[in-house]
Amino acid sequence: MTTPSVEALVFDVFGTVVDWRSGVVRDGRRIGDSKDLTVDWAAFADAWREAYDPSLDRVRRGETPWRNLDALHRESLDGLLDRFGIEGLTEREITHLNRVWHRLDPWPDAIPGLRRLEAQYVIAPLSNGHVRLLTNMAKRAGIPWDLILSAELAGHYKPDEEVYLTAADLLDLDVDDVMMVAAHEGDLEASRDVGFHTAYVHRPQEWGGDGADSAEKPDESAYDLVVDDFADLADRLDAPPLA
Amino acid sequence: MTTPSVEALVFDVFGTVVDWRSGVVRDGRRIGDSKDLTVDWAAFADAWREAYDPSLDRVRRGETPWRNLDALHRESLDGLLDRFGIEGLTEREITHLNRVWHRLDPWPDAIPGLRRLEAQYVIAPLSNGHVRLLTNMAKRAGIPWDLILSAELAGHYKPDEEVYLTAADLLDLDVDDVMMVAAHEGDLEASRDVGFHTAYVHRPQEWGGDGADSAEKPDESAYDLVVDDFADLADRLDAPPLA
Repeated sequence: MTTPSVEALVFDVFGTVVDWRSGVVRDGRRIGDSKDLTVDWAAFADAWREAYDPSLDRVRRGETPWRNLDALHRESLDGLLDRFGIEGLTEREITHLNRVWHRLDPWPDAIPGLRRLEAQYVIAPLSNGHVRLLTNMAKRAGIPWDLILSAELAGHYKPDEEVYLTAADLLDLDVDDVMMVAAHEGDLEASRDVGFHTAYVHRPQEWGGDGADSAEKPDESAYDLVVDDFADLADRLDAPPLA
Repeated sequence: MTTPSVEALVFDVFGTVVDWRSGVVRDGRRIGDSKDLTVDWAAFADAWREAYDPSLDRVRRGETPWRNLDALHRESLDGLLDRFGIEGLTEREITHLNRVWHRLDPWPDAIPGLRRLEAQYVIAPLSNGHVRLLTNMAKRAGIPWDLILSAELAGHYKPDEEVYLTAADLLDLDVDDVMMVAAHEGDLEASRDVGFHTAYVHRPQEWGGDGADSAEKPDESAYDLVVDDFADLADRLDAPPLA
């Protein structure tokens, strides 16, 4: 593999930049403790995330008009509260819990890697999270994005091609001047189909545990880069070390 | 005037955040020196900026489809090169000069003021500059925007109301949770008409000289705030001092 020459790097966020599972568990436990509830918050987090793709699919297939992730997450959450026996929350507390997706922490390597990469590239999220969610997340966690790109700007959800094409258009770049960075092959494949370069980042802990259940790293030939984390990505793209 | 309670501040950029005139003069002189040209670069800068509104008007009136500022600036620039006797530039040099609008420096108070404001508010540009121009400008100058908002995201130019409404929508805020900050009354009036709060910043040096020719500060009753610079704005909005 030779290192492709690109001007901008765009990143999947949930699972790739941030550890959604630990964040949901963390806030769940806080609520559980305050309300004296016994809940398997890891199972709750996984169930919430598993509801994600089907809820996006209804938008992708045009069965429902565009709605942002707060709305889709809330729809799933209402069912999960009942299923997991989570009772006694005020509307305000439910709204706060629903926005835990704005308050997720990056994987430890993410911000140091992005700081190196931003010296050489335009860096932006390209997530199904909406603009405000990604803005709140970056502001809270100190993620140094140059701009916020989102599926919302296309009115489509990934992996619809409109999302990638709109991002390239707003970056004022040809598609082959952009690299998609993601831990999920479907996202990378769709971006590659429109002409982006691609970097796969291995995140075996995304669904918790020891990572043994997660997919193997893909074959190196499938993408421009296959990397272990954002430090590895910065090394492979010859980004300078942090001063 | 009482201080309105808002969640986000959006800023006009050319003239309000950055000093376009000095930037154009600076790069013009560099070119003039290297090409041994004698040009009144201040007059050139003013003429280029004066061509700005008429070129946007053609888009606003729908006479031409959406085109970004690089395209509109280039159209004006081609005429100005001839008019000011600027000869001997390669296509590459002309393209570079055209992008001087990506390389403008903030007024001295802008970044310190924004650093204070970002602790309390979501801050973003809301400029007729396109997303990539604003991104390049912020990256070069270190402007700490949380996200890049632009007329481009609405496919309209300010003061068309679509620009302000699209910004509020992407911020996921009601219009009265947003404040427009600008040195130009037309921008403020249009944003006020859709329901934004407004802050006028006085920039008497925008067109150079001693500022004596520029408009008087407007009456304090016209906007929520009438301030002298971004330090004054941060004070008036009770933003904490920089640590």
